[in-house]
Amino acid sequence: MQIGFVGLGKMGYNLVVNLLRHKHEVVGFDINPELVTAIKGEGATGVNSYEELFSTLPNPRVIWLMIPAGPLIDKVLDQLLAAGLSAGDIVIDGGNSHYQDTLRRYELLKGHGVSYVDCGTSGGVSGALNGACTMVGGDPEAVGKLDDVFREISVENGYLYTGPAGSGHFTKMVHNGIEYGMMQSIAEGFEVLEKSPFPFDYEAVARLWNNGSVIRSWLMELTENAFKKDAKLEGIKGRMFSSGEGKWTLETALNLGVPTPVIAMSLIMRYRSLQDDTFTGKVVAALRNEFGGHAVVKAE
Amino acid sequence: MQIGFVGLGKMGYNLVVNLLRHKHEVVGFDINPELVTAIKGEGATGVNSYEELFSTLPNPRVIWLMIPAGPLIDKVLDQLLAAGLSAGDIVIDGGNSHYQDTLRRYELLKGHGVSYVDCGTSGGVSGALNGACTMVGGDPEAVGKLDDVFREISVENGYLYTGPAGSGHFTKMVHNGIEYGMMQSIAEGFEVLEKSPFPFDYEAVARLWNNGSVIRSWLMELTENAFKKDAKLEGIKGRMFSSGEGKWTLETALNLGVPTPVIAMSLIMRYRSLQDDTFTGKVVAALRNEFGGHAVVKAE
Amino acid sequence: MQIGFVGLGKMGYNLVVNLLRHKHEVVGFDINPELVTAIKGEGATGVNSYEELFSTLPNPRVIWLMIPAGPLIDKVLDQLLAAGLSAGDIVIDGGNSHYQDTLRRYELLKGHGVSYVDCGTSGGVSGALNGACTMVGGDPEAVGKLDDVFREISVENGYLYTGPAGSGHFTKMVHNGIEYGMMQSIAEGFEVLEKSPFPFDYEAVARLWNNGSVIRSWLMELTENAFKKDAKLEGIKGRMFSSGEGKWTLETALNLGVPTPVIAMSLIMRYRSLQDDTFTGKVVAALRNEFGGHAVVKAE
Amino acid sequence: MQIGFVGLGKMGYNLVVNLLRHKHEVVGFDINPELVTAIKGEGATGVNSYEELFSTLPNPRVIWLMIPAGPLIDKVLDQLLAAGLSAGDIVIDGGNSHYQDTLRRYELLKGHGVSYVDCGTSGGVSGALNGACTMVGGDPEAVGKLDDVFREISVENGYLYTGPAGSGHFTKMVHNGIEYGMMQSIAEGFEVLEKSPFPFDYEAVARLWNNGSVIRSWLMELTENAFKKDAKLEGIKGRMFSSGEGKWTLETALNLGVPTPVIAMSLIMRYRSLQDDTFTGKVVAALRNEFGGHAVVKAE
Repeated sequence: MQIGFVGLGKMGYNLVVNLLRHKHEVVGFDINPELVTAIKGEGATGVNSYEELFSTLPNPRVIWLMIPAGPLIDKVLDQLLAAGLSAGDIVIDGGNSHYQDTLRRYELLKGHGVSYVDCGTSGGVSGALNGACTMVGGDPEAVGKLDDVFREISVENGYLYTGPAGSGHFTKMVHNGIEYGMMQSIAEGFEVLEKSPFPFDYEAVARLWNNGSVIRSWLMELTENAFKKDAKLEGIKGRMFSSGEGKWTLETALNLGVPTPVIAMSLIMRYRSLQDDTFTGKVVAALRNEFGGHAVVKAE
Repeated sequence: MQIGFVGLGKMGYNLVVNLLRHKHEVVGFDINPELVTAIKGEGATGVNSYEELFSTLPNPRVIWLMIPAGPLIDKVLDQLLAAGLSAGDIVIDGGNSHYQDTLRRYELLKGHGVSYVDCGTSGGVSGALNGACTMVGGDPEAVGKLDDVFREISVENGYLYTGPAGSGHFTKMVHNGIEYGMMQSIAEGFEVLEKSPFPFDYEAVARLWNNGSVIRSWLMELTENAFKKDAKLEGIKGRMFSSGEGKWTLETALNLGVPTPVIAMSLIMRYRSLQDDTFTGKVVAALRNEFGGHAVVKAE
Repeated sequence: MQIGFVGLGKMGYNLVVNLLRHKHEVVGFDINPELVTAIKGEGATGVNSYEELFSTLPNPRVIWLMIPAGPLIDKVLDQLLAAGLSAGDIVIDGGNSHYQDTLRRYELLKGHGVSYVDCGTSGGVSGALNGACTMVGGDPEAVGKLDDVFREISVENGYLYTGPAGSGHFTKMVHNGIEYGMMQSIAEGFEVLEKSPFPFDYEAVARLWNNGSVIRSWLMELTENAFKKDAKLEGIKGRMFSSGEGKWTLETALNLGVPTPVIAMSLIMRYRSLQDDTFTGKVVAALRNEFGGHAVVKAE
Repeated sequence: MQIGFVGLGKMGYNLVVNLLRHKHEVVGFDINPELVTAIKGEGATGVNSYEELFSTLPNPRVIWLMIPAGPLIDKVLDQLLAAGLSAGDIVIDGGNSHYQDTLRRYELLKGHGVSYVDCGTSGGVSGALNGACTMVGGDPEAVGKLDDVFREISVENGYLYTGPAGSGHFTKMVHNGIEYGMMQSIAEGFEVLEKSPFPFDYEAVARLWNNGSVIRSWLMELTENAFKKDAKLEGIKGRMFSSGEGKWTLETALNLGVPTPVIAMSLIMRYRSLQDDTFTGKVVAALRNEFGGHAVVKAE
């Protein structure tokens, strides 16, 4: 199949290579011309504008977006419509968009006769290259046309048609919420080991737990890798950034009335890790001083 | 009543002055002779050894301990027994002892015919002086003899006989658990104000909330005082120390199978505030880097 | 001052009586004509339509809305504009609106030359009648004209001009977030008492804690009242409903990057209390059965 | 090697079969004679008393205990000592004992010249049979003699000598704490799916996530199995029992000052799941009624 591909960053680039390996013809576009040049080296056609993209792709078009979630998607959809996106075309959003944005965009494109398919993609950068996990929502006819594509770029059984529009991104969002919780669980465990009276070898423990234990998992394998590179993680700081999907999972859970304390605390501890000191802590320290005369630590 | 008083720190000293105001005769002892001298200036008798304490107090003795919870209590009880503590005497533990230690000590002293009364004391340093809140457990006969004393040193309705030995300290423990939660609640609220787009005057907001709102409380009054002294708490760091009772409340709740998520998180955030960086954070940051290539912050 | 008042429910009715006591003239409207009749009995003028409201009020108009937060506010503002709301008028939203809705409505009315004042109101139904706590945001000139009104219906020091439009509702929102945390803290403490080996009298403990303790507070007084009416709360179920402000506080904290674990857990436990059984629990129970052969409880 | 084996329950029985497959000679004992008979059918020698166990085993003895953690271990150690346990013998505790109990028992047996080895065992019932994950602490000489045994009954790389006495059980404890967090994370995610507007097939989603996603894990495989058996888990209730190790992890974390919010909440939600209604909820509901006149749900 001929596929237009917009966004050749870490994930997008690898997905294109993955598609090429499966004999698809890819027309790649990125605002960064160096990435376009690079993808041509992999065997794709490279273009430098939406006009060129549209003049190169046959009708009906299939265009895969792999760009940062948020307003940029809306802007690109506007540009695609301006460039000639029209009835019968299919646009795939392979990024981490909020499922409610996806529903809105689905309706927008539907008004133009264009199918909008949401593809949540997991497996990290290496998965994008060697076999991803794809969670795909959208109208069944549109997704049906892409079935082979999704199956081929995914690991075996790593592709699922999840249902109506938005359900793919919803599934990916929840996946990431679980991921937050699992990562925080693992990390807390290792901090208990680290503060324990025993001289643990963290890499050895992670390897052990990856072999036969109940908690064996890809995340534990990554933990093993991380400790292999830096036995006590002395080279990095414990700043836990987040890119939004954990927050969306919690917000969605609140909207649905689902109690998700572990996902909530995983997210909240990430925010806490970005602070060196907290106003909350100052208030509590001041209060202890007020009623109990407990000493406070003076700020420098 | 003549009362021996062991421990003349912040809380103990003020309680003795409170007792003296209510016409009790106090024989005060502390290992710090300066505090003994000072309490004599308030009208108490001062002694510098348990022997002197015992030769000064009439039989049967009433001895109030106001010393740090923990093994020191056991040591002092041993010293009191060695000095002549005997059948008919009453020992009051006015500190924040664990109720299970209290039960153990109650049984120990019972074997000597000595009554052991546990008195949880709240209200802070000023309450000790001007009217405390006392939660008293022990055998009803022993507590009955001290009823007037507890009532006089407490604010009106601020004394309760809570039941059998240990129940006073249990009540105080739970009181402190609630206190942790209330303090953290207030503090989180002010951090939301602080990070908001509005230029709030925290002292003014605390004063407002103390007048007519649902959350008016002594802790909110102390919050108001704290902001009056330092409008943005710039002079102090947010280190939230703890002296054990919140932890005991959580441990007890776990033993009783009671879900106490708010008390748990209040305590856990205190521990977190004592760390500049966390191993948990390092592990999560390393994992994000492993699977997503997300940048980590390098340690200096 | 002559004040139009829209919404004569529990809170609104009492606020009108409070206004009347302070010699203000109130023109009251409610879609329920029985409430209009009732408020006339208190000395207010009663009207049964916005047209009547506008023909009765002098220019410039001051109209106080005390109606449920949400789309109803927007509808009523449309109706007021249709009825003749115009430049120089002031509309007060005394309800629990989301501060971002308030900002939107402030801009809308500003386009019509109308001032929009947000008044967060605390103190419950009795406070509305006898002295509320009012947190008021809006343009200083508009609020300045109402200063005396807010001061009079509030308890002493119970009124604060919090700053620009939205800040009053923001303050009330955070107030409620703190309230959630304090309530959950108190409640967890009493559950620890309830599961303890001691035979506590909860009303007596609440009264004790209201006298001299660190946690004395209006909420603890209400706790005392509640136990006075039903010593073990045997008559009610532990369903903890919520009306939105705790959720907004958490959502706002997430947006601002403020870690509020205690407010989060207070909210989450409310949602949990509305479920008799959970899918989360089923999954965990099934997993324990899968790996450990642990018995599950069969559903009936 | 000849190994005495005490405790032939689910885990113990399978471990014996595993040992037999690796050509070890096992002398099995259980207080339930039927299990002794059964294990004889597998090729082990069966005995019905500690005396018989001791008369059958050669010197120095190696005795593996696979019995419920707690006081029973102490009782059995006393019985083994009474039966002739003596210098040079090795006792392995393969159960989920608290590491501090293990340290105490290690010291006790050391006084008799007996080595005490703690072996945390993971992988569930199937792992015990086909390849476990073993985390082993104790004196290096003692563990060294058993190295081959532990390696053979474990999956490849699934055995680790973790360090001094207690470290094996400590590692297993933390493993289980992580397990609690991972399970709760997965379960919360599925509850978000279940309450979502999309008609998800949970088994299909779990299978998907096991193939290529970041959260692929043995626990997710078990989730897939569970949904395969009961697509919506309608047959079971969400009672989440616990056997102690999550609680120990949290208690240990509290003692070490490690903030473990996710492990804490995982445990607390388990306790919550055992309650049909909560006193906490009653108190909060009563308070809402007190200040806001909010309706409560009456108990039947």
